[in-house]
Amino acid sequence: MSSYFPDVSAIKYEGPDSTNPLAFRHYNPTEVVDGKTMKDHLRFAVCYWHTLCGTGSDPFGPGCAIRPWDQQGGSNVEIALRRVDVMFEFVTKLGAPFYCFHDRDVSPEGKNLSETNAIFDKIAAKLKAKQDETGVQLLWGTANLFSHPRFVHGASTSCNADVFAFAGAQVKKAMEVTKELGGVNYVFWGGREGYHNLYNTDLRREFDHLAKFLQMAVDYKKKIGFTGQFLIEPKPKEPTTHQYDSDAAACTAFLKTYGLDKDFKFNLETNHATLAGHTMFHEMTYSSSYGMLGSVDANRGDELIGWDTDQFPTNLYTTAQIMLVILNQNGLGSGGLNFDAKVRRESFEPVDLFHAHIGGMDAFAHGLKIASAIRKDGGLAKFVKDRYASWDTGIGADIEKGIADFGSLETYMLAKGDSAANTSGRQEMLENYVNRFMK
Amino acid sequence: MSSYFPDVSAIKYEGPDSTNPLAFRHYNPTEVVDGKTMKDHLRFAVCYWHTLCGTGSDPFGPGCAIRPWDQQGGSNVEIALRRVDVMFEFVTKLGAPFYCFHDRDVSPEGKNLSETNAIFDKIAAKLKAKQDETGVQLLWGTANLFSHPRFVHGASTSCNADVFAFAGAQVKKAMEVTKELGGVNYVFWGGREGYHNLYNTDLRREFDHLAKFLQMAVDYKKKIGFTGQFLIEPKPKEPTTHQYDSDAAACTAFLKTYGLDKDFKFNLETNHATLAGHTMFHEMTYSSSYGMLGSVDANRGDELIGWDTDQFPTNLYTTAQIMLVILNQNGLGSGGLNFDAKVRRESFEPVDLFHAHIGGMDAFAHGLKIASAIRKDGGLAKFVKDRYASWDTGIGADIEKGIADFGSLETYMLAKGDSAANTSGRQEMLENYVNRFMK
Amino acid sequence: MSSYFPDVSAIKYEGPDSTNPLAFRHYNPTEVVDGKTMKDHLRFAVCYWHTLCGTGSDPFGPGCAIRPWDQQGGSNVEIALRRVDVMFEFVTKLGAPFYCFHDRDVSPEGKNLSETNAIFDKIAAKLKAKQDETGVQLLWGTANLFSHPRFVHGASTSCNADVFAFAGAQVKKAMEVTKELGGVNYVFWGGREGYHNLYNTDLRREFDHLAKFLQMAVDYKKKIGFTGQFLIEPKPKEPTTHQYDSDAAACTAFLKTYGLDKDFKFNLETNHATLAGHTMFHEMTYSSSYGMLGSVDANRGDELIGWDTDQFPTNLYTTAQIMLVILNQNGLGSGGLNFDAKVRRESFEPVDLFHAHIGGMDAFAHGLKIASAIRKDGGLAKFVKDRYASWDTGIGADIEKGIADFGSLETYMLAKGDSAANTSGRQEMLENYVNRFMK
Amino acid sequence: MSSYFPDVSAIKYEGPDSTNPLAFRHYNPTEVVDGKTMKDHLRFAVCYWHTLCGTGSDPFGPGCAIRPWDQQGGSNVEIALRRVDVMFEFVTKLGAPFYCFHDRDVSPEGKNLSETNAIFDKIAAKLKAKQDETGVQLLWGTANLFSHPRFVHGASTSCNADVFAFAGAQVKKAMEVTKELGGVNYVFWGGREGYHNLYNTDLRREFDHLAKFLQMAVDYKKKIGFTGQFLIEPKPKEPTTHQYDSDAAACTAFLKTYGLDKDFKFNLETNHATLAGHTMFHEMTYSSSYGMLGSVDANRGDELIGWDTDQFPTNLYTTAQIMLVILNQNGLGSGGLNFDAKVRRESFEPVDLFHAHIGGMDAFAHGLKIASAIRKDGGLAKFVKDRYASWDTGIGADIEKGIADFGSLETYMLAKGDSAANTSGRQEMLENYVNRFMK
Ligand SMILES: [Co+2]
Ligand SMILES: [Co+2]
Ligand SMILES: [Co+2]
Ligand SMILES: [Co+2]
Ligand SMILES: [Co+2]
Ligand SMILES: [Co+2]
Ligand SMILES: [Co+2]
Ligand SMILES: [Co+2]
Repeated sequence: MSSYFPDVSAIKYEGPDSTNPLAFRHYNPTEVVDGKTMKDHLRFAVCYWHTLCGTGSDPFGPGCAIRPWDQQGGSNVEIALRRVDVMFEFVTKLGAPFYCFHDRDVSPEGKNLSETNAIFDKIAAKLKAKQDETGVQLLWGTANLFSHPRFVHGASTSCNADVFAFAGAQVKKAMEVTKELGGVNYVFWGGREGYHNLYNTDLRREFDHLAKFLQMAVDYKKKIGFTGQFLIEPKPKEPTTHQYDSDAAACTAFLKTYGLDKDFKFNLETNHATLAGHTMFHEMTYSSSYGMLGSVDANRGDELIGWDTDQFPTNLYTTAQIMLVILNQNGLGSGGLNFDAKVRRESFEPVDLFHAHIGGMDAFAHGLKIASAIRKDGGLAKFVKDRYASWDTGIGADIEKGIADFGSLETYMLAKGDSAANTSGRQEMLENYVNRFMK
Repeated sequence: MSSYFPDVSAIKYEGPDSTNPLAFRHYNPTEVVDGKTMKDHLRFAVCYWHTLCGTGSDPFGPGCAIRPWDQQGGSNVEIALRRVDVMFEFVTKLGAPFYCFHDRDVSPEGKNLSETNAIFDKIAAKLKAKQDETGVQLLWGTANLFSHPRFVHGASTSCNADVFAFAGAQVKKAMEVTKELGGVNYVFWGGREGYHNLYNTDLRREFDHLAKFLQMAVDYKKKIGFTGQFLIEPKPKEPTTHQYDSDAAACTAFLKTYGLDKDFKFNLETNHATLAGHTMFHEMTYSSSYGMLGSVDANRGDELIGWDTDQFPTNLYTTAQIMLVILNQNGLGSGGLNFDAKVRRESFEPVDLFHAHIGGMDAFAHGLKIASAIRKDGGLAKFVKDRYASWDTGIGADIEKGIADFGSLETYMLAKGDSAANTSGRQEMLENYVNRFMK
Repeated sequence: MSSYFPDVSAIKYEGPDSTNPLAFRHYNPTEVVDGKTMKDHLRFAVCYWHTLCGTGSDPFGPGCAIRPWDQQGGSNVEIALRRVDVMFEFVTKLGAPFYCFHDRDVSPEGKNLSETNAIFDKIAAKLKAKQDETGVQLLWGTANLFSHPRFVHGASTSCNADVFAFAGAQVKKAMEVTKELGGVNYVFWGGREGYHNLYNTDLRREFDHLAKFLQMAVDYKKKIGFTGQFLIEPKPKEPTTHQYDSDAAACTAFLKTYGLDKDFKFNLETNHATLAGHTMFHEMTYSSSYGMLGSVDANRGDELIGWDTDQFPTNLYTTAQIMLVILNQNGLGSGGLNFDAKVRRESFEPVDLFHAHIGGMDAFAHGLKIASAIRKDGGLAKFVKDRYASWDTGIGADIEKGIADFGSLETYMLAKGDSAANTSGRQEMLENYVNRFMK
Repeated sequence: MSSYFPDVSAIKYEGPDSTNPLAFRHYNPTEVVDGKTMKDHLRFAVCYWHTLCGTGSDPFGPGCAIRPWDQQGGSNVEIALRRVDVMFEFVTKLGAPFYCFHDRDVSPEGKNLSETNAIFDKIAAKLKAKQDETGVQLLWGTANLFSHPRFVHGASTSCNADVFAFAGAQVKKAMEVTKELGGVNYVFWGGREGYHNLYNTDLRREFDHLAKFLQMAVDYKKKIGFTGQFLIEPKPKEPTTHQYDSDAAACTAFLKTYGLDKDFKFNLETNHATLAGHTMFHEMTYSSSYGMLGSVDANRGDELIGWDTDQFPTNLYTTAQIMLVILNQNGLGSGGLNFDAKVRRESFEPVDLFHAHIGGMDAFAHGLKIASAIRKDGGLAKFVKDRYASWDTGIGADIEKGIADFGSLETYMLAKGDSAANTSGRQEMLENYVNRFMK
């Protein structure tokens, strides 16, 4: 096998003062932070769809990415097999331990479902061989239930029951392949599970179908003994006007309504959080608070732009906040940081893929160091603990213990006349405090 | 008692062709639509805070509203007592059957909690007398747990346990007064229950406290035999950066997490829906689908503006959509349409209060007629029923009945090869269809 | 030539009570409103790009539109020639008087510029023949300077000077063809004239190039004696992060900075206005106030969605406001109402194209009637005139006449002590007033 | 005079490793960066309105700030005189060289204009004395033309001509006082110069009045020999729905339309930029490119929040970008960095004012170091220069020189067939490059 990135060698750690754009300044996989290597903290994954299949097309123009491996031609299957080599060369040179895929990223459709599945098996065999050869592992698999025209009205929430059936068959196969390849998670992103317009939509019936679908997945998981974590990825809109899994809270409501909350965690994406009007720090904290944070699609959006730009993460404030939540919950378990991010259309050369991933990995490694330093210093945690001290004794403790009611609170307060004085929230001081660690 | 609106007589229905701005063109309380009077369909309420207490202040200037009754002076309590007369004159002339209040709208604080409660009792007695005299009823009461500086960090979610205690005592009293006045609902809006910054916030502990608080309210409700409906009003932000009750889905997640979902419904507000990135039609449909739609704060925002403008509702598309959902669920039960809306700062004369309410009532009455006509025509409902027909038999029915699984779906689809063809969603035709009723 | 829409006859006016979705309820081309036919008021145009070339692809899936004429196959040029027949059949059956195109909508690229131009001539000849045959006219032509990968960094604002040169040659040709086909306007939309990131951008140099380019167009227009109106179409973002022609004000600033303001007017698009944070009513009023309103891209966006949804216009408030501005300036001159709008991806059948255009035409015809009725009633105009009456005499007239200065104003106000009282802006009353005409 | 901040000493520079929250870690006024002291680069100003007059009130509650100097009571004038002492103690301890004010921040209104002016003279005398005593200078003055109810419909754009007259008299006085106090700029922020609703607005007449007003100011400036720079501060909305000075481009359009562009520069505010949908980096670069960048209101917003939060600036990316533009234009001239920022309502203790300003000053000092390092490295500037190299010779140079036209470009391109290849924009690499300097 010849190289597809002949001009790029394996990316090395050169330290913070390196001026080499094709080196890491912060990501040093074997460096130990808080008793764990960076590699184990960060569990980076490269995604197949953007990195291997993305062409830079947008609603105003076709793709313009230079991807020599595709331009060599051949049948769809031949191209797909060639891309496996490209992917593993890329991931290996980058030094990421994981990759992720949708079924249709790695493997094209055939003329009917059985042919499609047969092609998938062939590709999967090569993926497995490359995994064994390189040591790169599968963070998660998923099924693309949104691109093909059959999914125009959704997959499990389609008004067309046959499409639900097709989607079920497709997820069954994708789960099998994910298991076969040792995937440690399986993701559900409801690409077109939502609506454009309520005039033609039976919202409740669609929600019921979505729940049926996920219950079947849970049942099939048990049946085949797949032990990976199921993850739901919230997103509020795009391509639809409203998506049912709009944010972590909406997914929680849905899972609890249908008794599915023990079987899923969330795969949170930064750009999806901001499209939903939340900071990623919020979505992370909320999910983690209830034990629902499973994995992260590490990218960033542009808060002044209203679509999913899926840019590579480079903002150290965001990466530090994400790592703070992850450290606070002792890691992501089987989850990881997957770069669900694409190079800009204007960054159309293959080497831009390296620049982009290196920058994202460094931003998270740097963010990890900042978060670790904040935790070590302890200033934030102490401030929060002290701030809520009134809950640890007296009336606060009574309330938490459940031995107060409105009657007892009224008695207490009638006697006291008014509540004890408040103290400043010190937001500005804390923001300055965090800036202390930006170095 | 002299009149506070001497130039305005009782507002009359004059029909669609009236050019009298102080008459109804659509709201005819005794007119029967779909077997029920408009009055019973719409259950309009005037809110005390904006209409009686609003002065037009904004972050860039003080109030400028001309409110002769306030300018007559006197002690806080004297002004409060005078305002009761103004309110009931206004509501009576307008012909709305209901009003709503926060405790502190109607009744000022005293120098300690007992004095505050004593003042409240005095005002409540006058409110009751005016209710009896005029026949105007109380749609709901609530407690203001956000204006006083003691609530700077929240009420039940304050870091200061004493503030939780004070809030509990305050809600206890507000529930008692609401019961005394025959209020048919009681509302919880978490004005400052959220955070500005996660650095100083223990999100999970605050959520736990919020749940404790609402559980105490549920317990106290049972204790005193208050039979009104409890309502939670979602809002995503403002005054805080993030509010815990951000939208209907977030409230559902919260209520289900803490086992409170049987005890509450939602009071949805149009402007809060749009601030959360949803249409009001969405929030209505979602809540109604799960039996959670209880009442409506009828206003409108400006989608291009990022704060709660609380404008009077005048858009017929929105009012028709709201009424469509309400008709589809056979009414709001004990809920109603409360004008949580304020005249613009520039509309500072007393008569503007009439223009504003008349316009809002007419927009909803007109919306009711449009929604009723759409239902009578049946075109929308039929389209939706037909669109999901594949779920009524065959594989669709099997899935809904729970007798399919991924294995059977795969067998079915391998045999069939691909799903049956889709049909157009016809969004444009349906939008045109709705325009047919805009007359 | 056989029919491409065999099941659709010419669309007829059937009046407001028609329930036929393939008939007009309001658009009656020969009906006279305010002394002019609806046809002459509205000057509807069908656009080639969305209607003939759109497939429904989006960032998450390929096209799924059923377009039999394309599926018949053939070379690019053969398909392009066949599409001309389809287009003219569609426009003729719809009864719109105009169409619009980009050069690359109607005519594919060849292997180099001369071949491209030769193909264009061939297509143009057929377009001309069909125009003559049907009486359909060309509202405007334009050049697509954003889809081809060569325009990845912009056209006249590309960092690559050759791309400017190519764009110049392309616009030269497009102007010639537009003139040849009797086009009455020529449009410039700066699809990729902006930036993604300021780190790699010389903003001032790019603006200077943009100005150079438009000056060349002005010069060439004179040279060939093209008498159509030049129009700039503002848009704030998408596909780029920031577009130089972001809104009407930004375009005004640009044109005045470079002395080009006499040579251009604006082609305003509703969805572009809202993406810029403005109402279309604002962009229309602002442009019209300074004589810069030339034409309208009649569509609508979704204010809760952050990308250019280009939906068909159906909101009667918006169409009435647009028509109010147009009536107030005595029409659009050579401009018209072009449906720069696309059917939803889910509306993939050919007949949806008819539903969409019929709805848009009816919404504007209905809006025209509403605007005309408001003008006839005179209530709005009178209110505004009265509101500014203090400027017609006394100190106001002195200021307008230019015979006051800060010194004289101070003298006046020191004597008077304070300004005369204000009166209410009556926004709610006026909004109710407008609702009176929604019928 | 006793101290109003007895517990806070003069804030000292202690270096990056200091953990003292009441010390500077980066702002070292005498440290020389690129040949100029930090003090002279940054020209920090403290604003009177937020810092001295802000109470933390918001639309949902009254102020809760602890401000002992106000609680000591006295007449309005006595309080105002006392506040002067507080302000100068604060600014002096902070070590900022400048302050700013609106007339009504420092000086309350009297019962008529002459009394108001007399009070202002009295306060101004004390301000002057304190300036002389402390060496603190006035960066700019301005007039508050938006808070008083007389300005409910705007000031120079009011429908009430008397209000224009009052505003003229008020600005005359404010300019005189600014001159007397040695102010080096004078600012115009059109607080209510805009509209809420177009139904009641004559937009063009209002714009004409605004221009008349500013022309009078220009005339009066010459008359009294005031040599400070006139600055316009753009803002898109809030308190109005649309403000005429919506962004730098809209202000440019306005100034050029009325021939005022030589007499004004811009005072850009970060939060106003983002409310207008632009990055501050954009507004800075655009304004600087055309010589219009005069001064900066240094704060920050929250891109997920739709109102002017006016938070203290702490984001190092933004401060570095702002300083990059300022360094590239060799400084702000007479302008400076004014903290138009307020502590959060929850940060209600006096010491929070110090935390907030220290954080803002440090964030800008740190940003200055980052920007300086980027310029010294030269990587960004070189990348941009190389990227546009095709414009320095050949066809690019011909176009810039004005010796090309569409004809010559077509000839060139017909011969060449297609444009030369593009190169990648390298956005990701450049973002990584900037992160290199985040230390
Ligand atoms: Co993702
Ligand atoms: Co995404
Ligand atoms: Co409300
Ligand atoms: Co509200
Ligand atoms: Co357009
Ligand atoms: Co558009
Ligand atoms: Co400012
Ligand atoms: Co501001």
